[in-house]
Amino acid sequence: MSHALRQGRLIDALEADGLEALVVSDLANVRYLTGYVGTNAAALIARDRRLLITDGRYAAAARATVQGADVRIGERDLLGDLGEALRELGPQAAAGFEADTMSVARHRRLEERAGRALQPTEGLVAALRAVKDADEVELIREAAGIADRALARILAGPLVGRTEREVAFHLHAALRDEGAEDPSFPIIVASGPRGAHPHALPAAEPIPEDTLVVIDLGAAHRGYCSDMTRTVATGDPPPELERAYAVCLDAQESALAAVRAGAAAVEVDAVARKAIAADGFGDAFPHGLGHGVGLAVHERPGLRPTSTDMLAAGMVVTVEPGIYLEGIGGVRIEDLVLVTDDGPEILSGAPKQLIGKDGVAA
Amino acid sequence: MSHALRQGRLIDALEADGLEALVVSDLANVRYLTGYVGTNAAALIARDRRLLITDGRYAAAARATVQGADVRIGERDLLGDLGEALRELGPQAAAGFEADTMSVARHRRLEERAGRALQPTEGLVAALRAVKDADEVELIREAAGIADRALARILAGPLVGRTEREVAFHLHAALRDEGAEDPSFPIIVASGPRGAHPHALPAAEPIPEDTLVVIDLGAAHRGYCSDMTRTVATGDPPPELERAYAVCLDAQESALAAVRAGAAAVEVDAVARKAIAADGFGDAFPHGLGHGVGLAVHERPGLRPTSTDMLAAGMVVTVEPGIYLEGIGGVRIEDLVLVTDDGPEILSGAPKQLIGKDGVAA
Repeated sequence: MSHALRQGRLIDALEADGLEALVVSDLANVRYLTGYVGTNAAALIARDRRLLITDGRYAAAARATVQGADVRIGERDLLGDLGEALRELGPQAAAGFEADTMSVARHRRLEERAGRALQPTEGLVAALRAVKDADEVELIREAAGIADRALARILAGPLVGRTEREVAFHLHAALRDEGAEDPSFPIIVASGPRGAHPHALPAAEPIPEDTLVVIDLGAAHRGYCSDMTRTVATGDPPPELERAYAVCLDAQESALAAVRAGAAAVEVDAVARKAIAADGFGDAFPHGLGHGVGLAVHERPGLRPTSTDMLAAGMVVTVEPGIYLEGIGGVRIEDLVLVTDDGPEILSGAPKQLIGKDGVAA
Repeated sequence: MSHALRQGRLIDALEADGLEALVVSDLANVRYLTGYVGTNAAALIARDRRLLITDGRYAAAARATVQGADVRIGERDLLGDLGEALRELGPQAAAGFEADTMSVARHRRLEERAGRALQPTEGLVAALRAVKDADEVELIREAAGIADRALARILAGPLVGRTEREVAFHLHAALRDEGAEDPSFPIIVASGPRGAHPHALPAAEPIPEDTLVVIDLGAAHRGYCSDMTRTVATGDPPPELERAYAVCLDAQESALAAVRAGAAAVEVDAVARKAIAADGFGDAFPHGLGHGVGLAVHERPGLRPTSTDMLAAGMVVTVEPGIYLEGIGGVRIEDLVLVTDDGPEILSGAPKQLIGKDGVAA
């Protein structure tokens, strides 16, 4: 989908809310709408005015990459430049700003510089971004394939005795060798009792034998992200962890089967949550089932008990139940999934049987 | 300095502004004040109430690392939990929030949940963070040493013919091998005409002969950052780039000599800016001279033409003039510097003569 078409859809959404223009300050949203890549820019999007403002550091790059919008190079005074652009639009045009990401201080200054009030909006571009077009799905599919191959490289060698940080770094190198720009988030390698912490940082500690290792990684590829978790054994883990693995995998596959266009996100979350609770691990799954993935590794929709999102064809989401047993270890199994009218299309390709145990190979 | 002492200084600053409590939502500020490391937390700091709120994912880690504050584990409803804590504080206590980082939408919800208005504040914790204590200086010094050694490793080998991305990745690996957790920002390797873009991303293109290569890197080390740039030659660069190098180095050393406690940041910036303009490159230095470095790689103070900051003993800042010639190439020379009463203490150790030219070794 062209950037101009994305801008057109945003304008349709704006007009449905009684607005004529939106100041887009969130950089991922700016990228989505215009193609701009960098650290200092904003856009003003209206039916007859599409403007990308950045500074001299990005002048050449912006002129080469921005589509569907005029590029204005300012003096690193984005709020002043936006204020001027809003004045050019005329005082009668109802204009909004992104209240969910713009700070209170910047909002106050922007209104001062524009000499007018702006309407708070939330999630307008996020709602567009949640449904991927074919080009986006292809990039995410490629990112998922990169992560599959990177994980396979690492699992072809030993884990025991290497530190978590070494393994994480070699995963990073493998992601890059397979074509990623970078990991899409800090890689998690959490073994033994550290696996009981869902967001453990890789430790400078060796991975022990006879336990589970949670490995959560993703590739950043031409702006798009992937996200996948596998949990592998190092020999013969404690029986409670083996049971947790089997319960988690059943819950994950049940939830996957519930993914389809028109399903309520909260219901998909509930499928996994009920399965885990029914097997006695109800307190051990303290996070949501999943989230959308795209330009950001966490975006709409949310699959969690408080979500009001509905799944739609073209969404790309994670399905990642976990079971965490303090002092013992953890399990998380996560696939990246494209939502279709007919059900889930799983983009993650790594195997899900418990590998590393009793000689089961990757 | 203990975290409790940092909290005490914040309370002194609050009380000077007529406030009794501050909701701290910026995660780097939360880390500075309490030691919390993670992605979901906020703090409420008052003379008789020091509270760190996070969720179950971080319960064990927060209890192990947070100092000087009670830890409260919530249900991933930070705004609700903060609202409750504010109600416990009593309606008559004047409380502020961080208007420079809290979004308009979150601020509105926080006031709803607290049932009260909060006062906007800006830069209170940033002002404390700008002046480092001895422990912080030591960590930044170590981070700078890691980057020095990583760069030396890479410059011991050839650059020509390797892609910028390969060199950036090997710098990343070298940073890690020397003890960094990660780079403190995405490493820049920009050769030939790409060097004319101050924030160029490393390209999948080979580094050519007979030009300059801008290399900007830093180490993330136990939460603290370093930041350094060197520009090296690959053989015999165009005369205009060689002249730009000499002018940039002179400007950088003149600006370094102006760094001392009590100097206005804008004056230090002006020393370099005037030197570059006097040599005919005035339009070619489109960014500020430098910035503070600490828990974040960009923090207070700012050394730029619009800055109102004054340098103080204990600040750690970069001094990084650049000259960028579109279509030809670029030069940037950056040191990390501790401000003392007696002048600058330079923390970056890599050599600054133009290496790589005519057999000048690293």
